[in-house]
Amino acid sequence: MKIGIIGGTGEIGEGMALRLSPRYDVIVGSREEAKAVMTCETCREALGGQGISCSLVGASNQAAVDEADLVVLAIPFKHVAPTLKTLGGFEGKIVVSPVNPIERDTYFYYAPPPEGSAAMMIRGMLPATATVCAAFNNVAANRWKKIDEELDYSVAVCCDDPVAKQTVMEMVNNVSRLRAYDAGPLAAASLVESVTPLLLNIARFNRMRDVGVRFI
Amino acid sequence: MKIGIIGGTGEIGEGMALRLSPRYDVIVGSREEAKAVMTCETCREALGGQGISCSLVGASNQAAVDEADLVVLAIPFKHVAPTLKTLGGFEGKIVVSPVNPIERDTYFYYAPPPEGSAAMMIRGMLPATATVCAAFNNVAANRWKKIDEELDYSVAVCCDDPVAKQTVMEMVNNVSRLRAYDAGPLAAASLVESVTPLLLNIARFNRMRDVGVRFI
Repeated sequence: MKIGIIGGTGEIGEGMALRLSPRYDVIVGSREEAKAVMTCETCREALGGQGISCSLVGASNQAAVDEADLVVLAIPFKHVAPTLKTLGGFEGKIVVSPVNPIERDTYFYYAPPPEGSAAMMIRGMLPATATVCAAFNNVAANRWKKIDEELDYSVAVCCDDPVAKQTVMEMVNNVSRLRAYDAGPLAAASLVESVTPLLLNIARFNRMRDVGVRFI
Repeated sequence: MKIGIIGGTGEIGEGMALRLSPRYDVIVGSREEAKAVMTCETCREALGGQGISCSLVGASNQAAVDEADLVVLAIPFKHVAPTLKTLGGFEGKIVVSPVNPIERDTYFYYAPPPEGSAAMMIRGMLPATATVCAAFNNVAANRWKKIDEELDYSVAVCCDDPVAKQTVMEMVNNVSRLRAYDAGPLAAASLVESVTPLLLNIARFNRMRDVGVRFI
């Protein structure tokens, strides 16, 4: 399976490239292809330093969509709508949203769009033959890139298509020690996205770092 | 510290009485005092069978408020407003809300009142000198009564008063292996309450039972 990462040069995108490219063909997308190529070089060196071979190629965001079977939107919520408006070709693709609409006051809170969640907004912006899955929403951003550390978290997956959901859950289970859980239809993704501001509050008010979650 | 449990004869209320009465003076409240007295008898036997002594007394819900320093609202969301309208005397008390406004369709979803959360609604119904804390929201209901099993979960606590928050966090940490985390002000309680329908979905869609949460 070929995985395209939109925003693949960002913190989470690069971390996902590091974690997924030893196992899958990964296309790192960026608005600037040259930046994506550089990120791939950095990832290759980091993985090579640990004796891990990988499959990585840098490309434009549009090429990352075009080449991939599964597209990950590794971009902040505020960039999602503007970015999707510039891209096409999502027909028949699985689109994974780790996106969380969060605002900050004296604490972090969930600030979903009118559709109810980032995932539902994304579904509304894509063609009907694209299948949106919410996944990876609660994995602490800073942990993705620390490839010498395991990711030992639970990952809730929401999706309306059972086959796509299964594909995404298998992908999750192939990353470090992540464990995928079926969290229901895409309409339930708001419950998953809103865990992230809770984790940020817990980190903040208990002086912890990179708090994640386990369902037990 | 004296703890009053409103709805102390329900599933969670009785379980809380079992878990808290070995350590605190617990007043089990009920609309029917006789029922509360019976629940106390059942609890005393269950704990006595394990060689555990406890402090338990059955009372009306109003007497449970009047006698307690800290009142736990162990009632379903739909009963909260009608019950609070029949009760008074909350002035100066700490009021703990483990209440989650949840609805069920083909999946569970969060259905908060206009105030944004059950906790915020409760605060609006009580006198200004009462201090509301959200706590215990995500502990699986069925686990409370199984006193031969440890409760090994994280518990997010939201409250606007630092002293009351500290009191509640200490109480949480005195129950089995529960670990309290400061999750910010009461306005952030919606993030805590909405974890519960997520856990119910995960239980349902992965054929699991009594799913709880750990922050790591």
